[in-house]
Amino acid sequence: MYASQLKNSLLRLHNNKIFEFSVIGVIILSSLLIGVKTYDINPNYLLLLEILDIGVTIFFLTEICLRFITTVNKKRFFHNAWNVFDTFIVIVSLIPVDQSEYALLARLIRIFRVLRLISAIPELRLLVNALIKALPSMGYVLLLMFILFYIYAAIGSFIFESINPTLWGDIAIAMLTLFRVVTFEDWTDVMYETMKVHPWSWAYYLSFIFFNAFVFLNMMIGIVIDKMQQEHNNEEDISQRLKRIEEKLDQLPR
Amino acid sequence: MYASQLKNSLLRLHNNKIFEFSVIGVIILSSLLIGVKTYDINPNYLLLLEILDIGVTIFFLTEICLRFITTVNKKRFFHNAWNVFDTFIVIVSLIPVDQSEYALLARLIRIFRVLRLISAIPELRLLVNALIKALPSMGYVLLLMFILFYIYAAIGSFIFESINPTLWGDIAIAMLTLFRVVTFEDWTDVMYETMKVHPWSWAYYLSFIFFNAFVFLNMMIGIVIDKMQQEHNNEEDISQRLKRIEEKLDQLPR
Amino acid sequence: MYASQLKNSLLRLHNNKIFEFSVIGVIILSSLLIGVKTYDINPNYLLLLEILDIGVTIFFLTEICLRFITTVNKKRFFHNAWNVFDTFIVIVSLIPVDQSEYALLARLIRIFRVLRLISAIPELRLLVNALIKALPSMGYVLLLMFILFYIYAAIGSFIFESINPTLWGDIAIAMLTLFRVVTFEDWTDVMYETMKVHPWSWAYYLSFIFFNAFVFLNMMIGIVIDKMQQEHNNEEDISQRLKRIEEKLDQLPR
Amino acid sequence: MYASQLKNSLLRLHNNKIFEFSVIGVIILSSLLIGVKTYDINPNYLLLLEILDIGVTIFFLTEICLRFITTVNKKRFFHNAWNVFDTFIVIVSLIPVDQSEYALLARLIRIFRVLRLISAIPELRLLVNALIKALPSMGYVLLLMFILFYIYAAIGSFIFESINPTLWGDIAIAMLTLFRVVTFEDWTDVMYETMKVHPWSWAYYLSFIFFNAFVFLNMMIGIVIDKMQQEHNNEEDISQRLKRIEEKLDQLPR
Repeated sequence: MYASQLKNSLLRLHNNKIFEFSVIGVIILSSLLIGVKTYDINPNYLLLLEILDIGVTIFFLTEICLRFITTVNKKRFFHNAWNVFDTFIVIVSLIPVDQSEYALLARLIRIFRVLRLISAIPELRLLVNALIKALPSMGYVLLLMFILFYIYAAIGSFIFESINPTLWGDIAIAMLTLFRVVTFEDWTDVMYETMKVHPWSWAYYLSFIFFNAFVFLNMMIGIVIDKMQQEHNNEEDISQRLKRIEEKLDQLPR
Repeated sequence: MYASQLKNSLLRLHNNKIFEFSVIGVIILSSLLIGVKTYDINPNYLLLLEILDIGVTIFFLTEICLRFITTVNKKRFFHNAWNVFDTFIVIVSLIPVDQSEYALLARLIRIFRVLRLISAIPELRLLVNALIKALPSMGYVLLLMFILFYIYAAIGSFIFESINPTLWGDIAIAMLTLFRVVTFEDWTDVMYETMKVHPWSWAYYLSFIFFNAFVFLNMMIGIVIDKMQQEHNNEEDISQRLKRIEEKLDQLPR
Repeated sequence: MYASQLKNSLLRLHNNKIFEFSVIGVIILSSLLIGVKTYDINPNYLLLLEILDIGVTIFFLTEICLRFITTVNKKRFFHNAWNVFDTFIVIVSLIPVDQSEYALLARLIRIFRVLRLISAIPELRLLVNALIKALPSMGYVLLLMFILFYIYAAIGSFIFESINPTLWGDIAIAMLTLFRVVTFEDWTDVMYETMKVHPWSWAYYLSFIFFNAFVFLNMMIGIVIDKMQQEHNNEEDISQRLKRIEEKLDQLPR
Repeated sequence: MYASQLKNSLLRLHNNKIFEFSVIGVIILSSLLIGVKTYDINPNYLLLLEILDIGVTIFFLTEICLRFITTVNKKRFFHNAWNVFDTFIVIVSLIPVDQSEYALLARLIRIFRVLRLISAIPELRLLVNALIKALPSMGYVLLLMFILFYIYAAIGSFIFESINPTLWGDIAIAMLTLFRVVTFEDWTDVMYETMKVHPWSWAYYLSFIFFNAFVFLNMMIGIVIDKMQQEHNNEEDISQRLKRIEEKLDQLPR
């Protein structure tokens, strides 16, 4: 009875608009703390930062516990990927690290607290969900591009290795060089160098650029068309309705 | 009676096509004056420029007054953002500045007179209104991108600061460096430098480029889909009409 | 009677598929001649090139005359912009030029013979007509971009001139520099240079890049939407038909 | 009878999911072999690589034979472009090459085994088929762009050859330089060099960039519109149905 009352008041607190905004506020504060630490800080303020850091950790821990307690179905709590994500971030920052070898790692993990901003703002959560949904339709295109990179990197590595091992030494380095060519970053320097030995090697670069641009362009267009088809699925509904109207008309006495 | 007559003739003047074109003409003249001042000018012509400048200021002041007088509902005049904008530009250029420390500021404000071209040409006004309307749908995507930049900048600043403080000194500088990477401007120089110390840092750059391209691509596609849905809203009308037709058919005697 | 017979046979010749392809063939030959002349040619072949050039000119002249003669309505011949274009190219290459100062100009004009390929291949003609039709919808966006360039160039020229007159000397040079910034070509060099004097000048470059990208992106999307609306105009037809059906149903006896 | 039984069991094997995945597995293995060979390999492992290579070749040969045997209509086997492609790749790698002059060629052909991944994964096959179908609609746009490049390269080669023969020596080199300009790769270096002699040459570069961007942009939009029209072809069906409904209504007694 008392527990239920407490739970109710916690629920009220959790659904409170002011509480919601204070959560976002603390996340922004923790993000700023991370940013501030990249500057050279006056040692006098180091203690303040430390205290704020501990405060943020405690607040996050409380908020997660509150959220868990107010969830009716405890199992469903961990079915929500965002809850799992938030809990993971909070637990990881609880692990004590002295200023030893893991200090950098701890600092890096703390950075991912910024990502909690996404889980705290519903619009961003929706956006990221939409992005994740769009991933599979891009998967095979990325695989096709990888095959293209792999083949060209193998060819480049065989033919151009003797010219410049820094750029074409093995297939991994050659793929990085090809990515550089695709971003048009000083790609002519790479080309002119190999053209001195193999005057026809411009065909290698131009065909690679064309293939990639072509595949990429079609991927983009394909996704647009795909999404639009999803939107127009309700139009088929119109087609079926017309059929029904025609049938009704046929049944009418003449 | 006399005032009303004057107002009518002013209204006629204001709605006159020739007057409209002369307003655009004076704005173009004032834009050219600004452009001319960036060249080294023969001192003989300086006086001429000065006179033209004063002439333009007087013309702008007159035009605004005329527009205010001919507006029936004086309150609604300042509800139109373009009127407020025009009035602001005109008033600011009236503030007298001697060739002191504020001279540069005065010169800069005068540049924004060019923007009056947008408020004077209806098609440009429409275009800018459409652009401003498209802003909110991009807001959350830009916030998402900012979070991405912030996290990567924090990571980059922690790991790469010792390698090159000019590029990775603090989180603000690191964000600028990351923007440079995203524009593909000599980004391989930045990468090769950190790869000498951390051979795996290529993953940092490639993942950042991929995340950004992916988010940006989806934002673009999202906006296209969004706009198209707005256009197709009238299609739902079709769906409702079909429903009405079906209902009428059902009411018919068989 | 005889003339009419001749005209008929000329018309037959002109509509002949083989003739059509030989026209395209001669245009390609004339294009190749232009290309060949950019190489260092063995003097023995110079005469051959000269003869081929005269041959091409005579062929083009004959073809235009033939086309003019076989046109029934002589007035309408010059209403077709492609005919005017072809005639202009042919007449200009007839003007005799000795190897004097106008030789380069004559050579340049001969280059535009390549453009006759567009007027000779119907698919390319259609494509170019479509491109020209798309121009007006881009006009106001380009004007808006020009205003953006003008304002930023004026600001840049006022503030940065003392730092690097080669890049910011006057408004024209500043606009060229800004175009370079927009193409991301070594734009960080330009930025880092001014940031040494005005540390906040990164805001100038970033805002400029954002504004341009934003306007350009919206222009692209706008045109896509615009074109799609044109395609869907026949859908309004559906709306009107539904109205008619409803009216007919209302007139039916119940 | 016995042959038919064998064929049936082969068919069962061929349609087996495990067999399918093992084919993909072997293709990936052969791809990895190609990649590994670009590294400096410990001579001890060279024999292992050799054996694996022979194993892959035998497996591919067996798989192709199996596929041919299990095809009912032997003629239709070679009507499928993917079968022809696979057979070609397998046969070519059977040609014995000693470590002579053709060794590099043999190695290069082996690289194309990676492409068999596309024919082995149905989704990739679909994707590539879609890409090939999209080619014709881009053909004339690419021809138009080639004409643009050709004309500008001819002009550039005539006017700028004396300034820098490495970039503008003949029409082929000039086209490569223009491609570099279009990719914005150090294009200002090319421009500033010619602007020292011909101060107005910026118009040459800017007009070229604008024309290309304009044609490319319209090509992209055109393809999107084109694809969407194909999707909406079934909407015309709606128009015809409405016509039928109206006719039926007209035949009803009033």
